[in-house]
Amino acid sequence: MTTHRGRHGPTIIDVAQAAGVSRQTVSNALNAPRRLHPDTLARVLAVVERLGYVPNRMARSLRTQDTRQIGYRLDPEEFGPVGVSQDRFLYSLTSAAEAEGYLLLLFCRGRTGDELARYADMLRTGTVDGFVLSGVGPDDPRPPWLKRRQTPFVCYGRPPTTGPDDLWVAVDAAAGTAAAVDHLVAAGHRTIGFIGWPGTSGQDEPRLTGWRRAMRGHGLGTDACDHALDTPWESTRGALRLLSRTPVPTAVVAASDAFALGCYAAARHLGLEVGRDLAVVGFGDCPTASLITPALTSVGPPFQDIGRAMIRLLVARLREQVPEEPGVLLAPSLVVRDSARAGPPDRSGTGPER
Amino acid sequence: MTTHRGRHGPTIIDVAQAAGVSRQTVSNALNAPRRLHPDTLARVLAVVERLGYVPNRMARSLRTQDTRQIGYRLDPEEFGPVGVSQDRFLYSLTSAAEAEGYLLLLFCRGRTGDELARYADMLRTGTVDGFVLSGVGPDDPRPPWLKRRQTPFVCYGRPPTTGPDDLWVAVDAAAGTAAAVDHLVAAGHRTIGFIGWPGTSGQDEPRLTGWRRAMRGHGLGTDACDHALDTPWESTRGALRLLSRTPVPTAVVAASDAFALGCYAAARHLGLEVGRDLAVVGFGDCPTASLITPALTSVGPPFQDIGRAMIRLLVARLREQVPEEPGVLLAPSLVVRDSARAGPPDRSGTGPER
Repeated sequence: MTTHRGRHGPTIIDVAQAAGVSRQTVSNALNAPRRLHPDTLARVLAVVERLGYVPNRMARSLRTQDTRQIGYRLDPEEFGPVGVSQDRFLYSLTSAAEAEGYLLLLFCRGRTGDELARYADMLRTGTVDGFVLSGVGPDDPRPPWLKRRQTPFVCYGRPPTTGPDDLWVAVDAAAGTAAAVDHLVAAGHRTIGFIGWPGTSGQDEPRLTGWRRAMRGHGLGTDACDHALDTPWESTRGALRLLSRTPVPTAVVAASDAFALGCYAAARHLGLEVGRDLAVVGFGDCPTASLITPALTSVGPPFQDIGRAMIRLLVARLREQVPEEPGVLLAPSLVVRDSARAGPPDRSGTGPER
Repeated sequence: MTTHRGRHGPTIIDVAQAAGVSRQTVSNALNAPRRLHPDTLARVLAVVERLGYVPNRMARSLRTQDTRQIGYRLDPEEFGPVGVSQDRFLYSLTSAAEAEGYLLLLFCRGRTGDELARYADMLRTGTVDGFVLSGVGPDDPRPPWLKRRQTPFVCYGRPPTTGPDDLWVAVDAAAGTAAAVDHLVAAGHRTIGFIGWPGTSGQDEPRLTGWRRAMRGHGLGTDACDHALDTPWESTRGALRLLSRTPVPTAVVAASDAFALGCYAAARHLGLEVGRDLAVVGFGDCPTASLITPALTSVGPPFQDIGRAMIRLLVARLREQVPEEPGVLLAPSLVVRDSARAGPPDRSGTGPER
């Protein structure tokens, strides 16, 4: 089989002939429109439109020194064990980029696993104009490395250290867990626990803070707090510890859907029914949230807005415009399902057997 | 902020000087190695390696008429309500492409939603060498359209109609549900139901066939079969119908993890405990499978092999080589977890109350 990889459709010469102008004029119409008289510009663009002419991307790239491509490194580990938001994140980025005339180019860590090697490859080969970074850690070498090379990038999640020029878009996780507390308090709960990652991993901090602040705002105590890893076994053990406290929490705000599922497992172990004896709220709104029994109430990141905001910031930087705000914090929304509709169980009298 | 988008690292001139050859010889070493004496080739490539020279991708693309980019259209609807396998599919494609020197470029349907418009854009702009297609339906216009343009592509899933040259990689779904039946029979189950999509949607056919064939192979009946949509409510209703049959199935093979979760909901409604009173096997092995209670046994597609096989076929076609087999059927593996470890409940005597 022979493959045909040449141009399809009309060429710049076809456009020039149909519009009665030179090739250079067509080129100017597309790349330097201000050099043309408005009438000429309008006539050429009308022909471009009518013939459906599209300049070869690679040729345009060499001429303009940009690629209209944005690089993003896929990391299978990054989005946690529920590992599903990357899908929606990618779709949101891809469609937002497309609306701005950019394409999203995926790469991985490559064979060496070197943190920067693949980024360096992409720059040396002139493959992308800039990058979307996610999972930026405290000593992540990528931001300073890209800055030294004056390569535009935007981070998903607020980077641990940010300069005044650094672009980032993050979910206001504290607002999410606070909304969960508000919802549970409105349903009648008073002893609302929290379970999240151990230590100050950064990722759990705002989720914990939002829970704590909202609890205090309602005049409620913040003792019922536990930490664990969000593997099935560890999150279940953590939830069992939390549910063995006195007074027993009637609701739990979990820092991830994986922790919430650990609460389900712990509840089952204790003979409690989630949604009746125990309210559970997760974080991340994974696709299975609506499929499990009872359906999981969860804080849902606004993925569509995330992609749009990230691409808007990055494209502004690529066009050497100054964005209004280099960092954007987006509010998530609480998706209420059966796991957290009911108020606390009636524990008057003997209470449920443990 | 000014951005630096020029070349980084050594140029072709640096390589030519260091190797004591002409620029053309360096170019030949990289693009037409057979024109060079093996010694010269080895010397030039050693310098390329030592200096870390990488030709500008866009310039190389114009010279060689290929882009080393593969296009893939993200479709948020395509991977079903559990919607999580796309992540692992993408990672597998990206890393396999990378190993062959290709990058994966994502696009969406664009504003018009026109099935072919974005594919046409990508070809007219010379952005990709070929495509990965997924979700190819019975009257999908993409395969014939791409063939007319002699554009290489490979399909994920066996297309409903395939020509002798069509490249595809599919999961042997029938082998997956058959393995589920074999496992359940070995655990002592005899009345094993099946729930899948209604009609001959194509997607459920091999899953149903595998269950039916394996049941017959064990000398068991295939009456306990029901169909539904895999929304939470419909799959639960379908599972309730299945579990109200006589004799009552002690195990269910589900055509997707979403159906399996419908069985969980139905079991809960009937007061049955999954993993003790009812064995459930899903299909797809979604990331939450190991996190829910009881952890879900599921047929897991071999994602790493899928990406590798698809890229191997597509790259062979791009290099105008003839692949050994244009279609590759890969066996999934059964991931056994708590939902399907036990044998049938003891129903001697009165049996469980329904």
